Amino acid sequence: MSHTYRLIVSCPDRVGIVARVSGFIAEHGGSILEAAQHSDVIENRFFMRYEIAFECDAEHIRQGFAPIAEEFGMKWRLHDVAERPRVVVMVSKMAHCLVDLLYQNATGELPGDIVAVISNHDDLRGMTEWHNIPFHHVAVDKDNKQPAFDKVAELVDSYNCDTLVLARYMQILPPVLCERYRGRVINIHHSFLPSFVGARPYHQAYDRGVKLIGATCHYVTEVLDAGPIIEQDIQRVTHTCLPDDLVRLGRDVERRVLTRGLHWHLEDRVLLNGNRTVVFS
Amino acid sequence: MSHTYRLIVSCPDRVGIVARVSGFIAEHGGSILEAAQHSDVIENRFFMRYEIAFECDAEHIRQGFAPIAEEFGMKWRLHDVAERPRVVVMVSKMAHCLVDLLYQNATGELPGDIVAVISNHDDLRGMTEWHNIPFHHVAVDKDNKQPAFDKVAELVDSYNCDTLVLARYMQILPPVLCERYRGRVINIHHSFLPSFVGARPYHQAYDRGVKLIGATCHYVTEVLDAGPIIEQDIQRVTHTCLPDDLVRLGRDVERRVLTRGLHWHLEDRVLLNGNRTVVFS
Amino acid sequence: MSHTYRLIVSCPDRVGIVARVSGFIAEHGGSILEAAQHSDVIENRFFMRYEIAFECDAEHIRQGFAPIAEEFGMKWRLHDVAERPRVVVMVSKMAHCLVDLLYQNATGELPGDIVAVISNHDDLRGMTEWHNIPFHHVAVDKDNKQPAFDKVAELVDSYNCDTLVLARYMQILPPVLCERYRGRVINIHHSFLPSFVGARPYHQAYDRGVKLIGATCHYVTEVLDAGPIIEQDIQRVTHTCLPDDLVRLGRDVERRVLTRGLHWHLEDRVLLNGNRTVVFS
Amino acid sequence: MSHTYRLIVSCPDRVGIVARVSGFIAEHGGSILEAAQHSDVIENRFFMRYEIAFECDAEHIRQGFAPIAEEFGMKWRLHDVAERPRVVVMVSKMAHCLVDLLYQNATGELPGDIVAVISNHDDLRGMTEWHNIPFHHVAVDKDNKQPAFDKVAELVDSYNCDTLVLARYMQILPPVLCERYRGRVINIHHSFLPSFVGARPYHQAYDRGVKLIGATCHYVTEVLDAGPIIEQDIQRVTHTCLPDDLVRLGRDVERRVLTRGLHWHLEDRVLLNGNRTVVFS
Repeated sequence: MSHTYRLIVSCPDRVGIVARVSGFIAEHGGSILEAAQHSDVIENRFFMRYEIAFECDAEHIRQGFAPIAEEFGMKWRLHDVAERPRVVVMVSKMAHCLVDLLYQNATGELPGDIVAVISNHDDLRGMTEWHNIPFHHVAVDKDNKQPAFDKVAELVDSYNCDTLVLARYMQILPPVLCERYRGRVINIHHSFLPSFVGARPYHQAYDRGVKLIGATCHYVTEVLDAGPIIEQDIQRVTHTCLPDDLVRLGRDVERRVLTRGLHWHLEDRVLLNGNRTVVFS
Repeated sequence: MSHTYRLIVSCPDRVGIVARVSGFIAEHGGSILEAAQHSDVIENRFFMRYEIAFECDAEHIRQGFAPIAEEFGMKWRLHDVAERPRVVVMVSKMAHCLVDLLYQNATGELPGDIVAVISNHDDLRGMTEWHNIPFHHVAVDKDNKQPAFDKVAELVDSYNCDTLVLARYMQILPPVLCERYRGRVINIHHSFLPSFVGARPYHQAYDRGVKLIGATCHYVTEVLDAGPIIEQDIQRVTHTCLPDDLVRLGRDVERRVLTRGLHWHLEDRVLLNGNRTVVFS
Repeated sequence: MSHTYRLIVSCPDRVGIVARVSGFIAEHGGSILEAAQHSDVIENRFFMRYEIAFECDAEHIRQGFAPIAEEFGMKWRLHDVAERPRVVVMVSKMAHCLVDLLYQNATGELPGDIVAVISNHDDLRGMTEWHNIPFHHVAVDKDNKQPAFDKVAELVDSYNCDTLVLARYMQILPPVLCERYRGRVINIHHSFLPSFVGARPYHQAYDRGVKLIGATCHYVTEVLDAGPIIEQDIQRVTHTCLPDDLVRLGRDVERRVLTRGLHWHLEDRVLLNGNRTVVFS
Repeated sequence: MSHTYRLIVSCPDRVGIVARVSGFIAEHGGSILEAAQHSDVIENRFFMRYEIAFECDAEHIRQGFAPIAEEFGMKWRLHDVAERPRVVVMVSKMAHCLVDLLYQNATGELPGDIVAVISNHDDLRGMTEWHNIPFHHVAVDKDNKQPAFDKVAELVDSYNCDTLVLARYMQILPPVLCERYRGRVINIHHSFLPSFVGARPYHQAYDRGVKLIGATCHYVTEVLDAGPIIEQDIQRVTHTCLPDDLVRLGRDVERRVLTRGLHWHLEDRVLLNGNRTVVFS
């Protein structure tokens, strides 16, 4: 019985990579279901994502591939599609992104499993638990930040989590979690970055009088709202929109952008390239 | 024979403005062809734009309306649609916006007349003169900025110009021109402001790894790229786009945004509200 | 204490309508909060929507306005904003639109109240009842269509419903309900009408090889998918999308278009103009 | 000195195609600059586009590749990027698409060369000849269709044309030209196909009351407006738009869609898949 794997590679660009990799796949009887590659000609770096059906098991392929990876100086991983990624979602009080993620989780549309929800408020417990998903309330205030985040880190670790989603979690994640889950913490920021970094971006947008608002799905790094961007989109607004209208209109674009970015991440379609991303959408 | 006028009003908001203005119009036999109004509830300010067919002449209407305007503390103007606005376009070397404006001028699609083109380079003379429009080359370099801009100001004044369009004019307009033509100088900036203010925005966008590029049509003020925004739009890009691709893809969104913004301005659809705009599109 | 009303008018166009209506409002101490009007110059028909704060009660205003309405041959209504519209939602098995509507209902974002959900399947009962909204399962099959729809009609009537929303209800509504709720039954069709009328539009779209799919929110009439369009939007697709991908991608645009269209309808922003709509969005 | 080639392949899908092709490229010292592939799992058909830098000449590569092509049952071609495609543009009276194409031709942005313009009217001669491009006026009326189209066919042939662009040419191309240039005649239709096939689509759109208008770039076949779609896009419209406004607003989306579709075609990014297209954009 064949298994589907995703082979994700990045390495210095040079002649013969594709031939070598696809030759390896053919020798092992693999059938390429989907292929995407990209050459960054400025950084001279090569990126590749293959979806492959193999008869043999992952360990066998990994062992066979290791010498090729070494020869070309590859960063790589082979992911068995049958192993669904485990996702922890962090929220505050606003429900719109969580509602959408729980719906996708329930219908099987999400290419991963939501294993827990953590919040600094208790408001969204009912909805989460109705979906039979554990909900953890870890209050965060000025005086308890360190112990609170220690508790959050412990919880996240306890769920053996692959991806951490900040679905309008209105707290800045501590550097230790940023570091431990580097490239695996996804945030939805409610502006078209790099415009309106920081707090209350819709109010900033109102003050500047922009005609479009936006949302940005990005990896979290130590620098606030400055991590690699995965996806962005916008929503047209007019002079009739008050800040509250921007907040309301923004909800829809936020959850759309988060959904697209998260799906791509969970399907191993997003590769880091410095502070930029390659997205094989 | 009836004439079409546009009555543009802004004033402190209070009860009875519409009744008083529309009553005045009815008393003078005016027929309202198009009407738009907006209340800024935060600033408590009212904005109105009426297109009206009158039998009587502009002077008669203006005299009749003046007491109402005074009573309500209105900023207002009455514009006879038959008087087409006179537009001077300023360019550097890039043709894409100018090509589009000249085409619209030739077909009558532009709601105004391009009366001259001024450039700090001579490259676009041929195309401009083929359209029978005067072209003026006023070179600007570090050492002659003041006399050069004096010459530009003199030229602009000589054309009795209503609106000045910076159609990718790669120079910063001197404060004296900003001041003299306040609310009548329109720039197309090649980014989604307030992201990427200043020089080489497409290169800034590349470096930040954004997934959308944009353009912003705004009124020019003394503060670089910070004037009131009239219109914005975006173009999706991917990791395959090099800075030059962004430049190329951006051309289309630049000219579209400039065209929309300029049309609305020339049709008196854009009203200033502090550093924001009301656009009755 | 003042109440907010919406005055909705359509009538043959002629000089003096605005003056007369706004004069009436001023005489009754009304304050115009929002105003929109439109002249259809082809059909010579005038449309107007005013949001007005009055001190006096609705009956008093209606009596005062009736003679003006008669003089100008107006179709009109005055709606007290405090009376929230009652909405019945009809669904089949697909949850995405209902999830969104229930969320909006729960947060107060929806400008109306969902008072019941009716379905020809029992699948969405749990979710509906968790929101404390009555759920009615009325099975429809080939042999019982008439009694089933009689039951549906009876239920809808029993809820004293203002607006009936077909949120992916995969049955054709019987003419008697179309007739009784003319202009108050809103459907979301999963194509960019008039392309792909009827069944399985995403499969039709796949076969035709379109590069954009869409959704259309429209009023239901006796003619399938031919009623007045309220709102449409699209989603870009590529050659990599199988029919099931189109179905999945379409969900998001369906619920967005339904949400926009329904909000506008519930806020009295949609006026019928033959088989077209005027949308004061 | 290396040359850049594009290798375009479609064939029945099976294991080992990529390995074989990329192996061949590596053996011949080729460097893959860009690669895209697609498997149509419904039709079991494989599509591939490689941009490759080779030291050796085209003939040498073609001879080497022929046996592989035969083994896999490939339709294929190898295109030397240095050989720029020759484009003939056909127009009627409307200039907007032609203006844009001539501008792109002049700036080198178009990945091909416009070698002639043919029109059934003489209106656009001046603009074309100002760009130093031959203009041919071949009048078409009811009584001379056959000789007129013979003349057109003769002209097109005489220019050794690779691609024929109908840039708002308001005549139906005769079957003989459709057949001779199958897959190389590109039309811009001014609607979102399959809505509004045939004449006056903007008027059809007005009558139906759609909220979006569109344009479709497609290959021309014998069946009117039914050929494989390359690209589509839309423009939002409102109830205030008269048919003439739709015509005006549509111009911009027409030329954008034509430009995108034509660029992709000229860069060999569009592969036919029955009546659908694979677009490696």
